[in-house]
Order: sequence, then C-alpha cells, then structure tokens
Amino acid sequence: MTVKTILPEDKLPTRWYNIAPDMPEGSLKPPLNPATGEPVGPEALTPIFPMSLIMQEVSTERFIDIPEEVREIYKLWRPSPLFRARRLEKALDTPARIYYKYEGGSPAGSHKPNTAVPQAYYNREAGIKRIATETGAGQWGCSMALATQLFGMECTVYMVKVSYEQKPYRRSMMEVWGAEVLASPTDRTNSGRQILAETPDSLGSLGIAISEASEDAATHDDTNYSLGSVLNHVLLHQTVVGEEAVQQMEMNDVYPDIIIGCIGGGSNYAGLAFPFMRERLAGNRNTEFLAAEPTSCPTVTKGKYTYDFGDTLCSTPLLMMHTLGHDFMPPGIHAGGLRYHAMAPLISALVDAGHMNAVAYGQTEVFDAAVQFARNEGIVPAPESSHAIKAAIDKALEYKEAGEEKVILFNLSGHGHFDMSAYDQYLGGSLIDYAYPEEKIKESMAKLPKM
Amino acid sequence: MTVKTILPEDKLPTRWYNIAPDMPEGSLKPPLNPATGEPVGPEALTPIFPMSLIMQEVSTERFIDIPEEVREIYKLWRPSPLFRARRLEKALDTPARIYYKYEGGSPAGSHKPNTAVPQAYYNREAGIKRIATETGAGQWGCSMALATQLFGMECTVYMVKVSYEQKPYRRSMMEVWGAEVLASPTDRTNSGRQILAETPDSLGSLGIAISEASEDAATHDDTNYSLGSVLNHVLLHQTVVGEEAVQQMEMNDVYPDIIIGCIGGGSNYAGLAFPFMRERLAGNRNTEFLAAEPTSCPTVTKGKYTYDFGDTLCSTPLLMMHTLGHDFMPPGIHAGGLRYHAMAPLISALVDAGHMNAVAYGQTEVFDAAVQFARNEGIVPAPESSHAIKAAIDKALEYKEAGEEKVILFNLSGHGHFDMSAYDQYLGGSLIDYAYPEEKIKESMAKLPKM
Repeated sequence: MTVKTILPEDKLPTRWYNIAPDMPEGSLKPPLNPATGEPVGPEALTPIFPMSLIMQEVSTERFIDIPEEVREIYKLWRPSPLFRARRLEKALDTPARIYYKYEGGSPAGSHKPNTAVPQAYYNREAGIKRIATETGAGQWGCSMALATQLFGMECTVYMVKVSYEQKPYRRSMMEVWGAEVLASPTDRTNSGRQILAETPDSLGSLGIAISEASEDAATHDDTNYSLGSVLNHVLLHQTVVGEEAVQQMEMNDVYPDIIIGCIGGGSNYAGLAFPFMRERLAGNRNTEFLAAEPTSCPTVTKGKYTYDFGDTLCSTPLLMMHTLGHDFMPPGIHAGGLRYHAMAPLISALVDAGHMNAVAYGQTEVFDAAVQFARNEGIVPAPESSHAIKAAIDKALEYKEAGEEKVILFNLSGHGHFDMSAYDQYLGGSLIDYAYPEEKIKESMAKLPKM
Repeated sequence: MTVKTILPEDKLPTRWYNIAPDMPEGSLKPPLNPATGEPVGPEALTPIFPMSLIMQEVSTERFIDIPEEVREIYKLWRPSPLFRARRLEKALDTPARIYYKYEGGSPAGSHKPNTAVPQAYYNREAGIKRIATETGAGQWGCSMALATQLFGMECTVYMVKVSYEQKPYRRSMMEVWGAEVLASPTDRTNSGRQILAETPDSLGSLGIAISEASEDAATHDDTNYSLGSVLNHVLLHQTVVGEEAVQQMEMNDVYPDIIIGCIGGGSNYAGLAFPFMRERLAGNRNTEFLAAEPTSCPTVTKGKYTYDFGDTLCSTPLLMMHTLGHDFMPPGIHAGGLRYHAMAPLISALVDAGHMNAVAYGQTEVFDAAVQFARNEGIVPAPESSHAIKAAIDKALEYKEAGEEKVILFNLSGHGHFDMSAYDQYLGGSLIDYAYPEEKIKESMAKLPKM
C-alpha cells in the first residue's frame, strides 16, 4: 500500500512557473507610488533588491529557469515527499482520498528556504555581500540565515524583540547558521532609534523590524533586503512545490478535486496551487481552490480588495490586495506566520476573479485538527499548517456526508518542533480562542488609503 | 550531481538482519542469573516482555520477517534518505567521499521509532493494552508514545524529574501522541515511594525510572515494559537502517571503507553497521568499523568487558558487556542518549573480537563538528549524532593527509531541534568541557560483580 510518493532526484523541476501571463485579463493591477498615484517602475526597487529579482517580479515569461546552483542546494531536501494520509482517511471514515505535500523536511523546517535560497543566490550574483531581513517567530530568519550561509554571505536578522526573548531556540538556530540576530527595535537604524526614543521599552513589531531591515539595506551599498512572502518573485520560487506535486499526483494516477493550503502572506499556498491553477485558468480543469486563514486575522474572508501599504509605517508602494488595513494588529495567535494584515496580490486577484475561495478558523479547532493529524499520521504540524489540515478534514467529512470519492491535496508547510509550548497550552486547556477582532478591523479599515 | 539517494518505497526491507548466528564462535555469552551465576532462560523475562520479542532476543535465525503492519507504519518516514555530504567534502578539501544515512526524518526525530513500532506491535499482538517505559531527555519516550498511539494502545512514560522540568517540549510531544507522562520518582510504585521517603526532593535518574517502569509492568497483567537500546531484539529492529543503506550504496556503485556511528547503548550504530558487518564476518570485505562515544562516558574506550547489571539498582540479569560499572553516573553532557554506563552485548562482543573500534570525544570538539556540519549540509544535528560527525570529519582529514580516496558512511541518527539550548551555550562560550571522570570510574568499576 503506497504511503508516500517520492520523486527521483533527477525529476526535481528545472523551471519555476510564473502565473502572471496566465492571469485573467486585467486582473493584475500595478503597484502605485503613494505620493503620485502613478504606477512605480522597476527602478524604484533597486536600492534594496537586485535587478534579477526585480525582473522576476514583473516578468511575463511563463517559465523561469532555476539556476543549477540553486537546484543543487534544493536537493538537500527536495524533491519533498507527497504523502497519502491513509490513516487519517480511515480515522475519518471518509471515501475521500487525502494527499499532502510535506515541506517540513527542509533544514529550517518549512517551505521558506525554497525562496530564501534563490534570493540569496541572485543577490550574491549581483555582488551583494550581506542580506538584511526581519523575522517574527523566526521561520523566515532561519531560512535566510541558512541560505546566506550556504552562499558564503552575511546575514543580519532584525527579530521582533518579544520573540527574541520568548523564542530563544529559533534565534540559536539562526546563529548556528552564522547569522547576526538583533532584537528589534535596535539603536543601529534611524527607525529603531526613533521608536526607542518614543518607547524605550518597546517590544517591537514586524512593521518596525521591516523598517529597520529595509533601512539597513538602503543605507549600505553591499547589503540588500529580502522578503519571505507576498511579492510575485517569492511566490514564483515556491512553485517548485507544485511542479513536484503535479508529477507526484500523476505517479498516483489521480488529479486533485480540491487544493488546500494555509495563507498568511500567501506563498506556501501559491507554491502548491499555481501549477494546478494553470490548468484551471487554461480551461482544462475545474479544480476547486481553498485557502485557510485564522478568524483573528481574516484577511481574505473579511478584508477589502483595494490598494494598501505592505507595511505598518507606510514606506512601501501601494499594492492591490485583500487587506485589513496596514496598521491592523491581530491577536497573538500561535500561528505567527499567518498574522499579516494583507495578502499576496496574485492570490488576492485570483480570489477576486472567482478562482479561489477562503475559509477562516479559530485557534482551538485548528489545534484539534493538528492533534488528530499527529495521532494518525505521526508528524506534529506547525500551527500555521494546521489551518490547512483543519480545512482538509472538514472537506473530507463533507465528502463523506455526500458519499463523494473526491481527491484532496493540501500543503503541510512545516513541522511544529518549535511550537510545543502552544501544544502544551492546548493540552493543558489554557489556549485562548480569541474573539473575532471586529472593532479593531473597523478601525484599521477606516485608515485605508483613499483611492 | 547526486546529493541524496532515495530508495523507492517498494524497496523497503522485508526482513531484519539478526547478526547472532554470524557472530564469531564463542563470542556471545548468555545472560546470567546474579543469584545463581547460571544462564537465565527466556521464561525469566515473561513478566515484562511478550514471548515473540523474547524469542527474537535469543533467535539464531539470520533473517526475521518484518510484519506487514509494521512496514506500513515504517513507510511514514522510511526508506530514509542517504546523503552524500558534497559540501562538507569540499569544505574539508578531502579526496574522501562522505555518505550519511539520515534518521532524523521520523516523526520523533531519530532512529528510535524503528524499534518502538515493532515493540508496540508485538505487545499488542500478545493482548497487551499498555506499555510502561522510562525516558531521560525524551527521545525514547516520544518514540514509544508515537508507536503505542499508532496501534491504539496506552503508554505511561516515567520521565526523569529533572528532565521533566527542564525539557517541557519533549513532554508536550509525548502528550500530543497521547501518552501519560509522569515525573519520576512518582508515588505510584514501591520503587518511587521508597526513593521519595529517603529523598523527598529527588531529581530522579534513569536508573530509578527504569525501576518504576519495570515494576509497573511486572505488577499489571495488561502492561509490559519496553527498552530503547542495548538488547538484541532492539538492535535487530534497527537493522532496517543498514539494509536500506546497503541498497543505497549499491545504487551509488560504491562500498564503504569505513562505517561510523555514535554509541550510547549501541542501537543506532548496530542498525547501520550490522548488515555491512555481515560481509566482514563472512570474510568477503575488510571494512573498518568505528564507534564514537563521549570522553565523559567512555564505556568502550575505558570500560571493562565483563558481566554487569543493566541498571543501577541491580534488578536485571547480568549481561556480558563493556561497562564502567552499573552505578557510574556520567557528567551532564548534552548528548543525553550517550550517558549509559554499559554497551550492547552484541557491540561489546564485536569490539572484543577485534571487528570494531571505538574513539572518544569531548563535548566542545563535538559541537565544533556539529556547527561545521550544519553550516555546510543544512541539517542541525543532535548532540549524540554529532559524535559520529566528528569521527567522520577526523577520518576525512586523515584520508586527505594520506591522499586516500576512501568512502566513509556514517549514521546521522537524529536532528537537534530540541537541543537548541545546548547550541546556545556552545555559541555563547558557556559549554562545559567536562574532565575525564577518572576517579568516578575507578569507584564504580570497583563495584563490578565478582565473576
């Protein structure tokens, strides 16, 4: 009985899939300069990104070659396995077949290195010596620390101070991979010093850390900035996941009826979904696409599809996306990777065009699903990925009710080895199920830029 | 360029290899009853083990079929990948080729589930409802919690109290998999109550936890006891690792010149080594076998090959093995899995017969090797496994010096995701390099049973 499908190493994809040219006509809106309301050109991003990545951001080529050096590093954990969750199917007594792609086998424990590695590569090719980036819980910081180390570059990670203090193990991991990790706000940047002058005991925030890292990059010639989700080129790199999954589903002689993933900025879900979405957009398949997000940060299910800033301090171009407002601060759920106020423009446009749907879940029901999964399939999932598990279980039960033998495919984007304190709270009955932050969302939505 | 070699799922071994019938004549000595000095028969073990495992313990069959239900669960993480450490080779500038088998991809993060799963299976087949076992740092307890959960059994883990308090995450993981975890000494057993009466604030020890778990098993009809290393049947189950590696090395058209692993009780190293040792014992190959242990618990390099008790409280039969004395208490090194006073009888006999060698390393040089490995190969290794890495690096440099293009194969038995505080100490310069505990070893060796 087949439990997992392994692609041979020589079937590791040679190209990423760029969905931009296949998007419904007129669905992609350009980034705008907030001062002029005019589209921004690629040159506006050169102080912090290398031209090769900027060109990928705006590319209209359907496929982009993966550099050989990047593929060699991918092989440290790729191709990743595709599992059939036979034990979970049996526990649910569902006629549905549940497949999942597992990205937790990377050294950093998630899908994030799929883009950290090429980002480091293109920066090194451009002569950049150091990457400055931010991290909240530490997943992205770890991935960039690993990637820069593998290319002999330096890495400075601005880590939100409260996480720096509460999550020392992710910090240690970044340091094992040679990164310098700073508790943000720091006194190294104008942004940091400004915050510290106003609030000396500031615990930091992702918005502040982004400001510090991008300022660091903009003010040092040998340093660039790097982002772990949201942008087109980040989603592009993640399509290696879906390109593998397409082959692995073929090896099983099945095609998914529904493709599920969790969304924070959108990159892990886009990575799995886009190579299958290609067939839907071409009119060849009618596959359903379902993204799962937290009720306490319901970007797609409750947000507005409009132009907004990517960061809290309004320093980015305006992007057309689902947003709760750039200064929305969600409750402190354990799925830290899903606490972003907005959604990748490519995902947002697909939702707006009716090709994708979203569903939102509360924290406790997500951990119920996580523990049920761990007890059947073994793997202890990350809280973020557990949103996808919850959606997959719900769908499997729905298909059971309807007696449908449908095929589910979801992305298990990472393991939960650094989230055991959250499981501890869940098992001890002290997990908080935050109420839907209706008032806070209203307030932040009121501050959306007027278009 | 090949980075890793994946066995197809249908090449997962169908049989474990039992080295007993191939051992040098007269090298295997029977367990003795400490009261009579006479060999103990299988029946002595029936209060705590099922007959199927006892028969494996004394089997003279060369191969033992892996039950289909066990193979189905193995497939959740097996076959495990074989990597070629090309980046490390390059960093060392060695002509040697370094291969490693990676067992950290199991849900529990180490090789331990390879035996926990069949042990749970055979107990369930025998009508046993619950397994009682002990754990120190938590690796074994996690593996048995997972295995019993997958077979619908209960699990009680007696966890050394100091670890229970210092390592809450391993405890949470066991609970996620449905186990009851108790801080040992408990007031549930006579052994525990006796200790608590004498020392109310006892921090516990592995010896005490073993006594509690085996008493629990002996005093409950529906409950058996389970051990994670040392015994023949445990090493037998681990040979699935080596049987895979034999096939994977063939796929690379190479045969190892040296096979390396870390040793605590001996099971991960035996698992990789025995299927290759089979060829050496048959006179077909002259492969070198090298086991790595800590200088602070130098069982093989400094111990005596003699009969001794397996536990501190002298409740087991006497086993012929390398030992530092049953009440030797090693310093608190981070490689908790290597802190056992003795060595598996099968490994000990092979060392005694000149088929294996051992080497000992200090804690800091082991972490030097671990960090060098992580920075080149990505994976952050467990402190235990890092002893094998250190030995592999030393050998690769020795071959460089001699200009020899030899092939190294080692077992990377687990990841270090739950050992980041140790890395933190290493990077912060506060890691303790314990002196060789010469006086303590002298004292404990003086208490060896007189034979």
